[in-house]
Amino acid sequence: MGEKKQAGEYVWFIPDCYYPEVTSPGHYVSHEAICVLNTGPEDAQIKLTLYFEDREPQDNFKAVCPARRTRHIRLDQIKDDNGNGIPKGVPYAVMIESSCPIIVQYSRLDTTQAEIGLATTMAYPMR
Amino acid sequence: MGEKKQAGEYVWFIPDCYYPEVTSPGHYVSHEAICVLNTGPEDAQIKLTLYFEDREPQDNFKAVCPARRTRHIRLDQIKDDNGNGIPKGVPYAVMIESSCPIIVQYSRLDTTQAEIGLATTMAYPMR
Amino acid sequence: MGEKKQAGEYVWFIPDCYYPEVTSPGHYVSHEAICVLNTGPEDAQIKLTLYFEDREPQDNFKAVCPARRTRHIRLDQIKDDNGNGIPKGVPYAVMIESSCPIIVQYSRLDTTQAEIGLATTMAYPMR
Amino acid sequence: MGEKKQAGEYVWFIPDCYYPEVTSPGHYVSHEAICVLNTGPEDAQIKLTLYFEDREPQDNFKAVCPARRTRHIRLDQIKDDNGNGIPKGVPYAVMIESSCPIIVQYSRLDTTQAEIGLATTMAYPMR
Repeated sequence: MGEKKQAGEYVWFIPDCYYPEVTSPGHYVSHEAICVLNTGPEDAQIKLTLYFEDREPQDNFKAVCPARRTRHIRLDQIKDDNGNGIPKGVPYAVMIESSCPIIVQYSRLDTTQAEIGLATTMAYPMR
Repeated sequence: MGEKKQAGEYVWFIPDCYYPEVTSPGHYVSHEAICVLNTGPEDAQIKLTLYFEDREPQDNFKAVCPARRTRHIRLDQIKDDNGNGIPKGVPYAVMIESSCPIIVQYSRLDTTQAEIGLATTMAYPMR
Repeated sequence: MGEKKQAGEYVWFIPDCYYPEVTSPGHYVSHEAICVLNTGPEDAQIKLTLYFEDREPQDNFKAVCPARRTRHIRLDQIKDDNGNGIPKGVPYAVMIESSCPIIVQYSRLDTTQAEIGLATTMAYPMR
Repeated sequence: MGEKKQAGEYVWFIPDCYYPEVTSPGHYVSHEAICVLNTGPEDAQIKLTLYFEDREPQDNFKAVCPARRTRHIRLDQIKDDNGNGIPKGVPYAVMIESSCPIIVQYSRLDTTQAEIGLATTMAYPMR
């Protein structure tokens, strides 16, 4: 990248998150991923804030995306500072805040029924 | 968020909406959702205007997304001021207008045939 | 909308179009749709230019989206000025040009195999 | 296009790439595609840089999208300067750099299980 401005933004949003409660037998488990790309020279310190329909936001999920790396944050595996995972079967939304510019994409693989449902979108950046 | 500018926009658009007429047996029913994130300190008063191919727009669907909450508006469940739902099996589009900045994502789960079709995209903001 | 600036852009792009050659038995046929929303007071005269991998662009597909209407242009049904349809089984891309600002979303439903593949994204606007 | 400014951007990003290891019998093989549209009068010389979670980026994948053409770059078929393909079963991200403005969309078709998972999104442009 050299002299170019660093790619991406500091804050991103994903309004439609959902961690399915059910997984059918097969190769995949139902999961969501927040996929981060950090093309810059510094590690990105990332904080996730979860927003719900009926309770206060939770802001104690953290991740790191090293310099010039990608990090596919699996939302079925991440734990907060107290060891708690993402609640299942509940609509939620996520704000991603990073210490340096990153690019963020959201994907969901749903195997609740026998077949796959696959969906992806770029997250929405704050500019 | 504190001193930061509030995230999002006041008006969003979703050109491709469709409420399938058929649902197969299984865990899920066919549905669409307009997923709203309000990171700000005020409740968002939301108005949906539906556009059709062959008739006048309908603008009497309303919803609220409270401060610092998400709201996943299920289009198979919302009713207008007269108690009418979204028409099924008809192509339509939606304009979302909010009293404060929000972020909007659209998702569709189609179980018309036995398997799942899952699709998502950020809505298009007016800037 | 009244005094507000009209929503949308005049030119949009969809790089990944593909009209599948095969449809399995079931409720749906494989199809793509370019979904247009026109919130303004004038009818939108729309021209589609198709780009291919191995031949000159084709720019003789037209459509109209009336004022304050949506139009879900089915790419398996549209005909050019000579009565020809979109070629099947060939990668292509589309530029959409409109006489007034519109918002454009692209969706594909693939029933080549028994199950549904459903995908959607906002088109990319020229600003 | 004539006197209009050329459409698109020089640099694009796709944080969530994944080349599935498994393909079920059927019409389709699992694949990803980076779909490029070049509406301008010059051929686009394209360089792909792959970012990984646990190793240095790889920047020796190249492609060309001729003037006024689309090019759907199949990531299961592309080879780098040494004849190596994209690694399978590993999360990665891609930066696309072009010698002239292009528009980029990413799609994935997953046939790991018997059914299709289909997903698409516009890539994220550097502006």
